[in-house]
Amino acid sequence: MTRPLTPLGSNPIRAVDVIRKKRDGQELTSAEIQYVVQACTSGEIPDYQISAWLMAVVLRGLTRAETSALTDSMLRSGEILDLSDLPAAKVDKHSTGGVGDKTSLVLAPLVAAAGLFVPMISGRGLGHTGGTLDKLEAIPGFNVNLPLPQFRRVLDACGCAMIGQTSEIAPADRKLYALRDVTGTVESPYLICASIMSKKLAEGIDALVLDVKTGSGAFMKKEQDAAFLAELMVETGEHMGKKMVALITGMDQPLGLKVGNSLEVEEAVDVLRGGGPEDLKELCIELAGWMLHSGGAADAVEEGKTVSRKLLASGEAFEKFRQMVILQGGDVRAIDEPARLPHSKFKLEVASPKDGFIVAIDCEAMGRASVALGGGREKKEDSVDPAVGIVVHRKLGDQVSGREPLCTIHHNSEARARQAARLLLESYQIASTPPAGEKPPLIRHVIRGAAAK
Amino acid sequence: MTRPLTPLGSNPIRAVDVIRKKRDGQELTSAEIQYVVQACTSGEIPDYQISAWLMAVVLRGLTRAETSALTDSMLRSGEILDLSDLPAAKVDKHSTGGVGDKTSLVLAPLVAAAGLFVPMISGRGLGHTGGTLDKLEAIPGFNVNLPLPQFRRVLDACGCAMIGQTSEIAPADRKLYALRDVTGTVESPYLICASIMSKKLAEGIDALVLDVKTGSGAFMKKEQDAAFLAELMVETGEHMGKKMVALITGMDQPLGLKVGNSLEVEEAVDVLRGGGPEDLKELCIELAGWMLHSGGAADAVEEGKTVSRKLLASGEAFEKFRQMVILQGGDVRAIDEPARLPHSKFKLEVASPKDGFIVAIDCEAMGRASVALGGGREKKEDSVDPAVGIVVHRKLGDQVSGREPLCTIHHNSEARARQAARLLLESYQIASTPPAGEKPPLIRHVIRGAAAK
Repeated sequence: MTRPLTPLGSNPIRAVDVIRKKRDGQELTSAEIQYVVQACTSGEIPDYQISAWLMAVVLRGLTRAETSALTDSMLRSGEILDLSDLPAAKVDKHSTGGVGDKTSLVLAPLVAAAGLFVPMISGRGLGHTGGTLDKLEAIPGFNVNLPLPQFRRVLDACGCAMIGQTSEIAPADRKLYALRDVTGTVESPYLICASIMSKKLAEGIDALVLDVKTGSGAFMKKEQDAAFLAELMVETGEHMGKKMVALITGMDQPLGLKVGNSLEVEEAVDVLRGGGPEDLKELCIELAGWMLHSGGAADAVEEGKTVSRKLLASGEAFEKFRQMVILQGGDVRAIDEPARLPHSKFKLEVASPKDGFIVAIDCEAMGRASVALGGGREKKEDSVDPAVGIVVHRKLGDQVSGREPLCTIHHNSEARARQAARLLLESYQIASTPPAGEKPPLIRHVIRGAAAK
Repeated sequence: MTRPLTPLGSNPIRAVDVIRKKRDGQELTSAEIQYVVQACTSGEIPDYQISAWLMAVVLRGLTRAETSALTDSMLRSGEILDLSDLPAAKVDKHSTGGVGDKTSLVLAPLVAAAGLFVPMISGRGLGHTGGTLDKLEAIPGFNVNLPLPQFRRVLDACGCAMIGQTSEIAPADRKLYALRDVTGTVESPYLICASIMSKKLAEGIDALVLDVKTGSGAFMKKEQDAAFLAELMVETGEHMGKKMVALITGMDQPLGLKVGNSLEVEEAVDVLRGGGPEDLKELCIELAGWMLHSGGAADAVEEGKTVSRKLLASGEAFEKFRQMVILQGGDVRAIDEPARLPHSKFKLEVASPKDGFIVAIDCEAMGRASVALGGGREKKEDSVDPAVGIVVHRKLGDQVSGREPLCTIHHNSEARARQAARLLLESYQIASTPPAGEKPPLIRHVIRGAAAK
């Protein structure tokens, strides 16, 4: 097991001293941070010291150097994939989580179709946001629990592979996150950054494109908080030698028109076949453009976007998705004919209570409606129903007449549907005049690391 | 066992929500604080949640209402002595800890001699400060571990009794303190206040006089920090219906001339017999004056001081001390003839390195010198040697010639004596001119609760 780091001739690091130092707002050394992470992972220092330290970090913050040291220590607590022998750059995308965000399902095959490698390790849905793994599992037979050697083989064979967190990757993050979850220490940009980046950098990637969401459906409701986290992650990744870009994107309404696991696979397939709703398509092409540029497959982002549009229109991206589904054990007929995906037994229309214009959507409430239907998780242990979800008919700025449907609930339980309907009705704000001012762009701004410029 | 408090029709209180609320700087309700204290004492919520909450309290602070609720919950976690049938007021004194502070040994019998009751539950020395229990145990046979019923009988019989913390008193404090000690959450005036006050108020007292030390030998080096804690404790005690006074007193040099357990008993006996060094005598009379006034035995503090002087001069206070020593199993001959107290085998003089004036003393270093000799504790588990200590010959403002002794070390080990001598030499700052300005008074100022005014 790991031992406390004791530089020659100096005293061993003591947990209580490190806690006090951070409590008093002083900068910790890399050795002190490494000690905390190693001793936490090995169980050498008790949880009550870790949680006191975490609270001190939440309230005192970390410097950039401390954030990098924390990320690095968490990364090195587990295995780091060595993909250096692959014949092209390895790039990935990470989103901070939203409602109806199925871009990963489009991006992995799309970017692989352009010749890069996308070794994507994703999470499950928790709270009001969905998770890529739950969406993939809506495809009958799709196995997201591949061991790392098999993950590697899929990646070799088709250029992309999508799995869940394995026990070898960043065990310190798993340990710390379990403790943060029950000690009120989740909400810290520094800890969020280290948690995300340690797992993503373990994928052995060269470049990472971040989609940091802001708005009513995002974890960071305020754009300035989203930008702060984005800058932190970009700087941390840069510091660790990766090409980094972060897009701050709007999450004031669901992305696309479908929320729920099967429904989102359906919509991702639409985009992969060259169709799909405009906003979803726009974000996929923008993110793919940056991924291709960061990975060296396009000299400029615009060129990357042009390539991406072509690969979607030609069906090449869809073909890559088919290959991956087959390689990961999924029933490819379910994506060739999405009617074969699991579908709910019942539907319920949620009608607009009045005439008017949609001026605001509480997108988090819409996410909670999906959870209420059984499509997401309140707690980690909950199972999800792939068939249920919401199809949205009216989005921001749209006009609606009284009794016209705002959305359609796909459900397997009347009681759950009623609860979801109440949440959905509450989530729409309808006014007699259209929303004032220009519609804010989906892509708010871009934060580029020096190496990605 | 205690259960989470669930007001009718409301949700049960969850630890993580209480932690998050304090993390975000919001005021907790009394029910929330009571829940944390009860669930901590019963072991119902795990230590890692308590320590995260403690760190949030350290960094966010508590309001006066929260501090009172915390003190009250900790007090009610254990037994509260009911001394309401005693025929006079019950008063006590508490000091925040210093070097050479043997006032408790004088005050308990002195105030009892004036007709009030002093039910004194004290602590042991830890770190550079001494503890009343260790001093009392220098008297052969003296039993500080009386069960509460026997404590009560001694109090009935002679008006004062002095024991250590029992397991029935404020168990929440013991549990919390053990956790604070290892999680960097000791240094918070709010937590210090609740810890001290919950134990003191369990004594069933009517009035409490606080001696809050400031200076190089105190825990609070800065007078403003001492005043802040003093005000907090006065307001908390007042809020709980007690008469409260706090004296902010100087601890820039040892109180009196003797440091070490036997040596301090000797000096306390000097004062009880009407002699002793001026500063120690002054502080004892001032504190006793306030105790008599707070307990209703003197209309004014000055009157209380006059009474105290008389009781010291007449030998009545000493006689009360003798009674208590006998009732608690101590060998009364050891205080009648202090030569019978444990004495060290060896002495070592620490000579001044040069001619000059004492302009500063690092009083904490002097306390550490006593610990180095074996007279105090580094860790709770350490045992103490009652015989060792320091006799101080030069104090602030005194003139000294090179080679004249600054102090004499009483020791039982050459190696320990050398270590102590080094610390003592370092603790004296000697200049060629006398210290500038007026000597600061021993009693800096007095903070009175409304009821004590």
